[in-house]
Amino acid sequence: MPSLEAYSSRLDYAYAPGFFPAMECLLHRPDLVRRVLLHSKAEGTEAADRLCETAERLRVRVEIADRALQRISQKENCFAAAVFAKFDEPLRDDKPHVVLHNPSDCGNVGTILRTSLGFGVEDVALIRPCADAFDPRTVRASMGSLFQLRLRVYDSFEAYRAEHPDHMLYPFMLDSSRSLPDVLAGAIPERWALVFGNEGSGLPKSFAGLGQPVRIPSNDRVDSLNLSIAAAIGIYAFTQRPGGCI
Amino acid sequence: MPSLEAYSSRLDYAYAPGFFPAMECLLHRPDLVRRVLLHSKAEGTEAADRLCETAERLRVRVEIADRALQRISQKENCFAAAVFAKFDEPLRDDKPHVVLHNPSDCGNVGTILRTSLGFGVEDVALIRPCADAFDPRTVRASMGSLFQLRLRVYDSFEAYRAEHPDHMLYPFMLDSSRSLPDVLAGAIPERWALVFGNEGSGLPKSFAGLGQPVRIPSNDRVDSLNLSIAAAIGIYAFTQRPGGCI
Repeated sequence: MPSLEAYSSRLDYAYAPGFFPAMECLLHRPDLVRRVLLHSKAEGTEAADRLCETAERLRVRVEIADRALQRISQKENCFAAAVFAKFDEPLRDDKPHVVLHNPSDCGNVGTILRTSLGFGVEDVALIRPCADAFDPRTVRASMGSLFQLRLRVYDSFEAYRAEHPDHMLYPFMLDSSRSLPDVLAGAIPERWALVFGNEGSGLPKSFAGLGQPVRIPSNDRVDSLNLSIAAAIGIYAFTQRPGGCI
Repeated sequence: MPSLEAYSSRLDYAYAPGFFPAMECLLHRPDLVRRVLLHSKAEGTEAADRLCETAERLRVRVEIADRALQRISQKENCFAAAVFAKFDEPLRDDKPHVVLHNPSDCGNVGTILRTSLGFGVEDVALIRPCADAFDPRTVRASMGSLFQLRLRVYDSFEAYRAEHPDHMLYPFMLDSSRSLPDVLAGAIPERWALVFGNEGSGLPKSFAGLGQPVRIPSNDRVDSLNLSIAAAIGIYAFTQRPGGCI
């Protein structure tokens, strides 16, 4: 393996920065881990000892790499990271999906991955152009939850739809006429996909013709909700509805 | 007014960075605005024209202040800001509250303010030590929603409680035995306060003895939910329960 570069979307590997995300990577996707990086200042701490023990058990190399860690994390302090091979996995067709259409903020994408896993939705599609799911900021915001998810990036919504034509679509749109509680009061099929648009522009208007558009019943005193907040409310409401636990 | 400094919690004024937050400040709290700052590069744009017209109507001074805007926003581009006097207002005792105990991240606090307003909870308490509600990062994440809220910062939870002894408390805790849907299936009094803890450490254990502790029923595959996500789910669920709209 060549010397480690600052993260770039061109690379075939990425970084899980921080003890918790690095440990999640080791525990859930040991097949992907190439090595573990540790800062010299962290040596001997409890968190470092646990990470090193786990790496050793999995026969993953640990190296002291202060400068590489600085390159990866830019401004933030970062005392450990896992280097892992990027992955792309087919979503399961028999499971519910979360679909993020053109999200632009890494923090939002990471937070949505964490929320999605927390409520048991393990299949997430990203539609390009979109924030990089493997950017260290995304991985950090996800707290490593992407290592327990199936994640696939598509060039277009049509490409996603071609692979999964039978999921009932629920596009979340500000101007939709049916509110989330109303939609949930009706029948929800076993296979559903919640679709969320870009932070600034939302979903294209054409999505109003797909499936059952949904509106979160916030008032008009805010322009909109933050994307990761809207997605969390949708995911929570769909998975925790009576009889909806998955 | 002396020349504008980079933001500091010591100042008695603060900045609402960005066209949207600056406009929210002008529209909802003209009494607080001291002046509007505009970047020379933004002059003549539609957003700048609208902001200037509104400021003029309200007799607020607009100045071209490229360097001050750079000082305020640090790394991010910022083409407009409102300078406003900080405020501290008593919460209404007859309304529901959101209480943030020791939140440390400005982005989370701002996002929670935005969500809270979006679902009609207009009274928010912050318990010190806590992220600065007037930090430009908080104001930006709130999208200016703080200008439509009553916001008070307390030195301790006891100080909050002394002012509002009758609100039914709902502390959100990971190890609480009653899940959110269970709690909502029961009766909720008219005056309630949702209490959320710090990002890393949550609420102190002693809060388990207050009111009705609540657990958000996420699974154990994530360590916890992001604070702004947990708060959003709580606020949504309390305000949108059947008969719960406020």
